[in-house]
Amino acid sequence: MIVLGIDPGIANTGWGVVEGGPRPRALAHGTVKTSPRSAPEQRLAEIHAVIDEVLSGHEIAAMALEELYFGRNTSSAVAVGQARGVSLVLAGLRGIPCHSYTPQHVKQAVCGRGSADKSQVQRMVGALLGVQPSTDHAADALAVALCHVQRAPLASALKAAS
Amino acid sequence: MIVLGIDPGIANTGWGVVEGGPRPRALAHGTVKTSPRSAPEQRLAEIHAVIDEVLSGHEIAAMALEELYFGRNTSSAVAVGQARGVSLVLAGLRGIPCHSYTPQHVKQAVCGRGSADKSQVQRMVGALLGVQPSTDHAADALAVALCHVQRAPLASALKAAS
Repeated sequence: MIVLGIDPGIANTGWGVVEGGPRPRALAHGTVKTSPRSAPEQRLAEIHAVIDEVLSGHEIAAMALEELYFGRNTSSAVAVGQARGVSLVLAGLRGIPCHSYTPQHVKQAVCGRGSADKSQVQRMVGALLGVQPSTDHAADALAVALCHVQRAPLASALKAAS
Repeated sequence: MIVLGIDPGIANTGWGVVEGGPRPRALAHGTVKTSPRSAPEQRLAEIHAVIDEVLSGHEIAAMALEELYFGRNTSSAVAVGQARGVSLVLAGLRGIPCHSYTPQHVKQAVCGRGSADKSQVQRMVGALLGVQPSTDHAADALAVALCHVQRAPLASALKAAS
């Protein structure tokens, strides 16, 4: 099972492709950086181009995305929502199911505790997947993909049993 | 100048195509309704299909979108942002510039005062464009397109003079 993890954002969208199994591995990862000097629709088109290419290049069975909290900052929430919508719609158009995980879920899955810090997540992603992600965003994307790869068998079993 | 107006939302995305000129007119309008029983990525794909078709069917020079406020409701902001991102990225991929207007801007442009209520906006859209929009969302989309059509010449003149 191959999962595409996404850490969505308008300035930086991290992505990471993880193959599940007894020993999960990273197949590819990267970050789309867009310039604040470009118009929002142009920045979203740049994210679209990269994620579309990633989806074309791998047999993706599921997408896993970070689900973020914004406190009271609704303008950030709209901006990240817009970036998130680009990845979601690309999955939807291909019939790829999407799953959202909070940062706490991801940290729990990858580091064993929900309060782990960013550098611990990076180290664990590196150790578990045998890669050195180039950015925090790529590491977070690989981490959310890894989280889904770990949780998916349990979720399927629970669904089958219910 | 033909403008596509969008009232973005996950459950209902209104759209309206307005041709500018001394007497603006509505070329087409409608609403994409999606079911809460569908997965978000599927609902976004449905919005994508309709807006993509609208963009293909008209020589759209600009897109105008409602810019909404959410108070402290960041989860609504993310959901609407996701729907908004779908329209924005479709414009971005075609090189169509996008413009955002607050509801106050739109009401001011269409009704002459920023505090007009929904039924007044509907009536003015009907009177100015000679159409009876089928839903509030389509009316709001036509209103934001009309707002842009009215403001664009002023904005161009100001830009040229500066």
